Amino acid sequence: GDTVVARTHLGRPTRVVVAGHLDTVPVADNLPTRLQDGELWGRGTVDMKGGVAVALALAVQVEAPTCDVTWVFYDHEEVASDLNGLGRLVRLHPDWLACDFAVLGEPTSGGLEGGCKGTLRAEVRLHGVAAHSARAWAGVNAVHAAGEVLRRLEDYAARDVEVDGLVYRECLEAVLISGGTASNIIPDACVVTVNYRFAPDRSEAEALAFVQDFFDGYDVVVTDSAPGALPGLDRPAAQAFVAAVGGQVNPKFGWTDVARFTGLGIPAVNYGPGDPVLAHKQEEHVPLDQIRHCEATLRTWLGAR
Amino acid sequence: GDTVVARTHLGRPTRVVVAGHLDTVPVADNLPTRLQDGELWGRGTVDMKGGVAVALALAVQVEAPTCDVTWVFYDHEEVASDLNGLGRLVRLHPDWLACDFAVLGEPTSGGLEGGCKGTLRAEVRLHGVAAHSARAWAGVNAVHAAGEVLRRLEDYAARDVEVDGLVYRECLEAVLISGGTASNIIPDACVVTVNYRFAPDRSEAEALAFVQDFFDGYDVVVTDSAPGALPGLDRPAAQAFVAAVGGQVNPKFGWTDVARFTGLGIPAVNYGPGDPVLAHKQEEHVPLDQIRHCEATLRTWLGAR
Repeated sequence: GDTVVARTHLGRPTRVVVAGHLDTVPVADNLPTRLQDGELWGRGTVDMKGGVAVALALAVQVEAPTCDVTWVFYDHEEVASDLNGLGRLVRLHPDWLACDFAVLGEPTSGGLEGGCKGTLRAEVRLHGVAAHSARAWAGVNAVHAAGEVLRRLEDYAARDVEVDGLVYRECLEAVLISGGTASNIIPDACVVTVNYRFAPDRSEAEALAFVQDFFDGYDVVVTDSAPGALPGLDRPAAQAFVAAVGGQVNPKFGWTDVARFTGLGIPAVNYGPGDPVLAHKQEEHVPLDQIRHCEATLRTWLGAR
Repeated sequence: GDTVVARTHLGRPTRVVVAGHLDTVPVADNLPTRLQDGELWGRGTVDMKGGVAVALALAVQVEAPTCDVTWVFYDHEEVASDLNGLGRLVRLHPDWLACDFAVLGEPTSGGLEGGCKGTLRAEVRLHGVAAHSARAWAGVNAVHAAGEVLRRLEDYAARDVEVDGLVYRECLEAVLISGGTASNIIPDACVVTVNYRFAPDRSEAEALAFVQDFFDGYDVVVTDSAPGALPGLDRPAAQAFVAAVGGQVNPKFGWTDVARFTGLGIPAVNYGPGDPVLAHKQEEHVPLDQIRHCEATLRTWLGAR
């Protein structure tokens, strides 16, 4: 693939991974990248060339870090999960990722975001009987049947789960709905696609069991699932990082590749320049100050003075 | 256009219109038309070449009817309403349609179906605020908001309206639903398309007022509307037809062009061979017996012996 892995071999007592993905989503009329009033504008500046730039600069400049470092720059993060370069490393060369702690340079506006929630998508499929809409009594309306599904979702009470002092608020929401074939036909099918974002204290299997129980009595088909990531902030290497970065640690709500490290038993956090809300947008941009701040913080953490 | 109108001028005390449309929906692997075990199979046999064949045969054979007859064979019934050949006659030559009673040869399985219900389509548009599905609390879910719309539809109590002894049961149903843009986004829009089939005692304006009141508080946009048709079975010409045809008179639930006659103040019924449920289907077919039965009945009605 197009993944680069480079390691120091200094015999330090701990090893950390600093990782970032090289690919971006397609440009959206935001090339060429330009520097304007102290901000870098253009595709990928936030997600995540800013974080990659910090890591590359440090890889070149920090010649004697206080821990051994494995630098990972990987491909295909922005496409299907099974193509993901970090996932390929986990499958084919997990030993290359062996370490005490991992930092993923995904944008966090220069704040520290620990772990991540898991995600599960399922289709709740309603079934009816088609009929002409002038003789509705001859049919069974599958779209009307979706009303009860939406009612349950409205009544959903979110769990707030505290892990390592971080509170992960869960979400269970309809993200798509589709039903009916023509404007004079009683719909015989309707599909409500739901997305469950679950706290990392729950496994994928437990998340699935919850969703199946929540929609008890319905035809539920899981279409996508990925585990969350426990932050592991109680580990010494993680505590050293938190101390170096300082400030507030927040939970990461969206799913990120930190979960792949967690799957290997490695605590991992998200830390990088750029507002994640701007990722994938036409107006994607990052302040240079944030890039410099992250670079300085990570240099201090690596003990380079 | 491709509409043919032919009239007798025999000085009879009453004049009737016998009408049928010439076009069919596209073939669906059901050509060539074939005769098989006393049934005529193929596109258009039901909707409505069967009824047209009856009318054509009578136009040729019945030389001295007891009422004057206007034969109308029109185009573009199966496409957009504004192209409809009968509608064009209503707009440009309403005098050509002047009569005491009209028979439309739409398929009714050889039974008599009086008048028709009106139809109104509207979009109930739900509005929300998009957000990442991992941070649902930052958004407002427009699909969840559709739950209350579907709840109202489930609670809808249909009106049964008796006109001229025919009971028109109304329907108000969701026929289409669509919402959401991606499986990781809280939907900011959802549209529920509803179809109201209203009894002919209610005008289009009254039907609209009912729907707007039913969905009070929602953004309701009407996309389509057509009035129903009162059967007018109390008129002498209509009673003569019912007497000639005999048997049970049923209400027509689906909208048909009889409503265009009603719009001119002319009572009109649907009467023709073929099961309307088979219209537009691959297995469209009609028993020859039903065609012959309709032909014989109408010949009797026209006093041709």
